[in-house]
Amino acid sequence: MSGGPLEGVRVLDLTSVVVGPVATQFLADYGADVIKVEPPEGDLLRKLGGKSPSGEMSAKFLHVNRNKRSIVLDLKRDDAREVLKRLCAEADVVVVNMRGAALERAGLSAEALRKGHPRLIHCWLAGFGQGGRYADKPAYDTIIQGSSGVSAALQRLHGTPSYSPFLMADHTVGLIAVQMILLALYRREKTGLGDAIQVPMFENMAAFMLTEHMSLQTFEPPLGPTGDPRILDPQNRPVPTKDGYICISANTDAQTFAFFDAIGRPELRTDPRFNSVAARFANVQEYFDFRYNALRERTTNEWIAIFDQHSVPAMPFHTFESLMEDPHLEDVELLQRVQHPSEGPIWNIGLPNRLESGARSDYLPPPVKGQHTNEVLAELGMPVAEIDTLTGQLRR
Amino acid sequence: MSGGPLEGVRVLDLTSVVVGPVATQFLADYGADVIKVEPPEGDLLRKLGGKSPSGEMSAKFLHVNRNKRSIVLDLKRDDAREVLKRLCAEADVVVVNMRGAALERAGLSAEALRKGHPRLIHCWLAGFGQGGRYADKPAYDTIIQGSSGVSAALQRLHGTPSYSPFLMADHTVGLIAVQMILLALYRREKTGLGDAIQVPMFENMAAFMLTEHMSLQTFEPPLGPTGDPRILDPQNRPVPTKDGYICISANTDAQTFAFFDAIGRPELRTDPRFNSVAARFANVQEYFDFRYNALRERTTNEWIAIFDQHSVPAMPFHTFESLMEDPHLEDVELLQRVQHPSEGPIWNIGLPNRLESGARSDYLPPPVKGQHTNEVLAELGMPVAEIDTLTGQLRR
Repeated sequence: MSGGPLEGVRVLDLTSVVVGPVATQFLADYGADVIKVEPPEGDLLRKLGGKSPSGEMSAKFLHVNRNKRSIVLDLKRDDAREVLKRLCAEADVVVVNMRGAALERAGLSAEALRKGHPRLIHCWLAGFGQGGRYADKPAYDTIIQGSSGVSAALQRLHGTPSYSPFLMADHTVGLIAVQMILLALYRREKTGLGDAIQVPMFENMAAFMLTEHMSLQTFEPPLGPTGDPRILDPQNRPVPTKDGYICISANTDAQTFAFFDAIGRPELRTDPRFNSVAARFANVQEYFDFRYNALRERTTNEWIAIFDQHSVPAMPFHTFESLMEDPHLEDVELLQRVQHPSEGPIWNIGLPNRLESGARSDYLPPPVKGQHTNEVLAELGMPVAEIDTLTGQLRR
Repeated sequence: MSGGPLEGVRVLDLTSVVVGPVATQFLADYGADVIKVEPPEGDLLRKLGGKSPSGEMSAKFLHVNRNKRSIVLDLKRDDAREVLKRLCAEADVVVVNMRGAALERAGLSAEALRKGHPRLIHCWLAGFGQGGRYADKPAYDTIIQGSSGVSAALQRLHGTPSYSPFLMADHTVGLIAVQMILLALYRREKTGLGDAIQVPMFENMAAFMLTEHMSLQTFEPPLGPTGDPRILDPQNRPVPTKDGYICISANTDAQTFAFFDAIGRPELRTDPRFNSVAARFANVQEYFDFRYNALRERTTNEWIAIFDQHSVPAMPFHTFESLMEDPHLEDVELLQRVQHPSEGPIWNIGLPNRLESGARSDYLPPPVKGQHTNEVLAELGMPVAEIDTLTGQLRR
């Protein structure tokens, strides 16, 4: 009885590492009963994500697996595969992220699982879409970033190609998978029928990057090169202050004039070099140099107080450490200190969004590997002796 | 009769620029009837997004406004505000992204619009969440990036803080808003009741970045510093080849040994410097230098063919130009040349995802400003004379 909008929806999560778990965590956070199926060695991210008190619960694992239950099944065994089939038959949503051939071999394709279960929603997170020549290629976040234009954008800005220093493809495509699953759940309410969904990482990230940077090549004939020049301007970055950096955005005349007032230079409102968008564009280097020098004169906090008074859009540049102590985030209680059964006190990341109808009201700590195996099997109606046989065999 | 899963859902979109339009475009792409309400001067992005044949349809505007209808209303006028109220009364979803005070003044708060319309779903995209001290501050993509840890991650990698060279906060939070709206639509099917949703950009991006980089500070006491060292490793980047760059990911022993085979050095499988994850970690600089030198010897395409044979995860680094010509994207027809009524031939970005039950079957070109004003007003049952009066007054 989680209390969220997805209360009563059961999700069988056969994914691991990041892209799948991000998707299913969103469903879990909003009330779905997410059963995470792990192999005997556990989700790779438990260790790959770094140190932890138990050695099995890395920080990254903790942050993408809350509100889920874990069951261990060794899918190389016939009896475990039989259990998985029974779990699928009772699920509303199954999420997988293997490659096509592995999916077929394991009997986990949409066709196999939806036979006799037309209400089931099958969501397949793939590296590359079926029907294209890369369909069977393996994919990782960095490979998708590098091939989808993320690294191209970073190259335009920094000179050499790099990857975004976060699992951007995994995270973004995980969010998109949630949408597709929610669309199918909504439609099922109308039609009674489930769905087979394919969410390819490469195509989704290419669509994102081309939305940003196809730019003048959108037109036929092209009106100019690819790349959004406003975004790729090297001056488009946090500006140094006396003691750190500030993020400031003063683009319109009104904002720029407020900025001139805020720094005590109201006469610049009528300076022909800076008194219009066109003038500032024509004298952009001089304008940025001026801004750069002016902001050096006070601390970030002094500037923020002044800019807030003048309604100039500005925020401090945060390091990860200062972000964790941000007073607004404390006001809204984004970070919550909770007790984890195996790891002791940890910082949980709360829900950023609000629904008037209420979100999930309970909190399940990220599960220890196989923590809910017995519980989930008992819910299937499996006799205790049979559970013992299955889990005993798994332990061997 | 769009044919997508959201067919029959009407969305009134009062947002502009990027974060809101990204959200409503997803709804439109999957079948919702999205009515984009623009002020007489039009969505700022029409011009801000760059040049276009008509001067009113920048590439970025085109890529986030397809499948929508546009109506122009001058909300400074009483009669236009009256029309807006009638449109709200017939909508399933209203999406807004003003600041709180402006929202109240315009009579567009959830409370005002949902009074007497309990089925209405109101989604408010805010810079910062209500209940926190930044609630009334203005926000832009860069300000959110700089304050939420995106720039901190880039600083860790590149030395100085910068912004991701794409509207990452706008795009990501737009995707999250879609999820919240779909959750509310799903719940409404069960309860008959709408919802009031708040989606703050800052909190959402902070949660994303802390998921990635809270790292060893997740634990109390902390087990070490913030930052995921695997992601922040400067060697974690596309590698130069004879004629470009390649993205390669060979982490496990199996992948690394396949990589050794692929480059014709199978004897390295037993080299004590490189024969295990631990050994490669201990000799990481030597390993990366070796890899760097080896990959210089052939072209990217030669390597891709070899790595595909050996099942080593690899993809070419794509520029925006080579991405637009990628053969897999051609296979799946991600980019479609379509005729735009005012801009001539343009490249439309198609839907990356597949739903077996079918997506939207028609395609509406991004609308000219106010293109559907008469049509939408007529659907409201407004007599022609009254429409003429309203639109005539608007044109003045």
